[in-house]
Amino acid sequence: MSKPSLLSLLEERAGEYVSGEEISRALNVSRTAVWKQVRKLEAEGYAVEAVRRLGYRLTGKPSRLSVQELLLRLHTTAFGRQLHLREVVASTQDEVRRLAEQGAAEGTLVIAEQQNQGRGRLGRTWVSPPGKGVWMSLLLRPPVPLPLSPQLTLLTAVALSRAVSKVVPGLSIGIKWPNDLLVGGKKISGILLESAAEDERVKYIVVGMGISVNLDPEDYPEELLDKAISLKMASGSPVDRVQLIADVLEEFELLYGLYLEQGFEPIRTLWEARSVTLGRLTVLRTAQGTIQGIPRGLDEMGGLRVELEDGSWRTVYSAEIGG
Amino acid sequence: MSKPSLLSLLEERAGEYVSGEEISRALNVSRTAVWKQVRKLEAEGYAVEAVRRLGYRLTGKPSRLSVQELLLRLHTTAFGRQLHLREVVASTQDEVRRLAEQGAAEGTLVIAEQQNQGRGRLGRTWVSPPGKGVWMSLLLRPPVPLPLSPQLTLLTAVALSRAVSKVVPGLSIGIKWPNDLLVGGKKISGILLESAAEDERVKYIVVGMGISVNLDPEDYPEELLDKAISLKMASGSPVDRVQLIADVLEEFELLYGLYLEQGFEPIRTLWEARSVTLGRLTVLRTAQGTIQGIPRGLDEMGGLRVELEDGSWRTVYSAEIGG
Repeated sequence: MSKPSLLSLLEERAGEYVSGEEISRALNVSRTAVWKQVRKLEAEGYAVEAVRRLGYRLTGKPSRLSVQELLLRLHTTAFGRQLHLREVVASTQDEVRRLAEQGAAEGTLVIAEQQNQGRGRLGRTWVSPPGKGVWMSLLLRPPVPLPLSPQLTLLTAVALSRAVSKVVPGLSIGIKWPNDLLVGGKKISGILLESAAEDERVKYIVVGMGISVNLDPEDYPEELLDKAISLKMASGSPVDRVQLIADVLEEFELLYGLYLEQGFEPIRTLWEARSVTLGRLTVLRTAQGTIQGIPRGLDEMGGLRVELEDGSWRTVYSAEIGG
Repeated sequence: MSKPSLLSLLEERAGEYVSGEEISRALNVSRTAVWKQVRKLEAEGYAVEAVRRLGYRLTGKPSRLSVQELLLRLHTTAFGRQLHLREVVASTQDEVRRLAEQGAAEGTLVIAEQQNQGRGRLGRTWVSPPGKGVWMSLLLRPPVPLPLSPQLTLLTAVALSRAVSKVVPGLSIGIKWPNDLLVGGKKISGILLESAAEDERVKYIVVGMGISVNLDPEDYPEELLDKAISLKMASGSPVDRVQLIADVLEEFELLYGLYLEQGFEPIRTLWEARSVTLGRLTVLRTAQGTIQGIPRGLDEMGGLRVELEDGSWRTVYSAEIGG
């Protein structure tokens, strides 16, 4: 017989209070250990009510995505139609890259409830606890030459910001070049496009998207709290993850179709309208050194046009922006 | 005791003729089978002299590269200093890509005597028989943004053409956009750059180079003979592969340093001077359709500037050029 767990005890007596003493006896651990296990369950997304003299009661389970529900809510033709839902992966990027090398179709999507090696830009780790965010990677096979592929980084930011605006209407979202989504100056999402090319041809691009949906302040390392925020923290109420995923895919497919048909021009307009980078004195750290100036817009390739203090112009394709 | 082979029989009696009858007895095969095995050895690069009534005699062994010899002749600082010499690999590209993912340094080089899944552009196979060519892949980690990486495709073509000119001085080599080296309209080499990027940052580029050095007409499939030629066939005499590899790496390192220091401008000048694409009415098949015009030069990104028949201009970043 398997050892009873706190969760199984509470689930067996759904709706009832189970006293700390009883749990302590059944699990053969101290009362303090019971309390610690309750905190652990809460961290995993369970809601446990604790009432003095009565004990503990399970009042909520973590939100779980389901393939059936996702497919029901999807309004896309290709994006997300090849859907892989995983409980835990190292990184959804690696999963999609593996599928891409095996010939997977454009639109293939991997969603994970939890990533234990989620990656951000420059190999930085990305906070992706279970059940509270949207961590997913989408496979694109765009018929565009390599020099234009960074345009898709900008397109992704526009698609994500439009989807979030739809699901959380009141929120004011700004895009920091090239693809950070900010609410009140704090990051709500991370985007990472990993591309593989042969000469000037793009073989495939894996679009990684991480959206901090229902994370609570205690899910973040302390030092990130002044830089990052979840949609729930920003709006005051939890957000339906399934609806958000469906809207991201729908917006993405729409803009991607527009891009393939009409080129970068409409995407540029949408990006510029949402940008919080334009018009402000900005320090840009490039591989060739640091420059300071006022970004004024995007050029037709997707580079950032910066007006320097001496009145000259520079186009920047790759840089870190501080702050 | 291991079964004697034709090669071991001929090597044991170095310099002497061994009669077909004796070989046939020793190997326990028919005279016709002996003759077939002789042809097979020749295909592997051995020279076997056959004289009526005397028999067969080994007069030459296939050329073999050695790490010691290569390192002795190298005049580079980084390129080729991490050297992996392999007898047979599926593809040197895959080997270097694997090393790159493990963190290998810029300049890491894999050379193979033979590839059995050598790849060209668009997944085409590449003829790479043992001992007769230079099949190698070089790892670059250029600090340039992704939109500029196709410039390295052009740089590679310049480096290769300069090295070949040094080793085979009389040969007139032209570069067909973007990176085919032609002698008398026939291809002598293949270049394939496979890049991996995160957003607009290049993580690494694997530069695959295949040079048909000492291939003989019988090494090519019949249908390739009007499109491809080896340096030996073009110049009339065999070429020292070690010297060629050393010169390619030296030219490459030199131009790469120049590029990182001064940008694309000097590379553009060198490429344009060697091009056979410029100034000729050309049909270009792009993903957006076929265009016809006269390529006039490169733009500052590395795109091909084409003058169309109506006098307008188009910049092409990715296309197939017929013929």
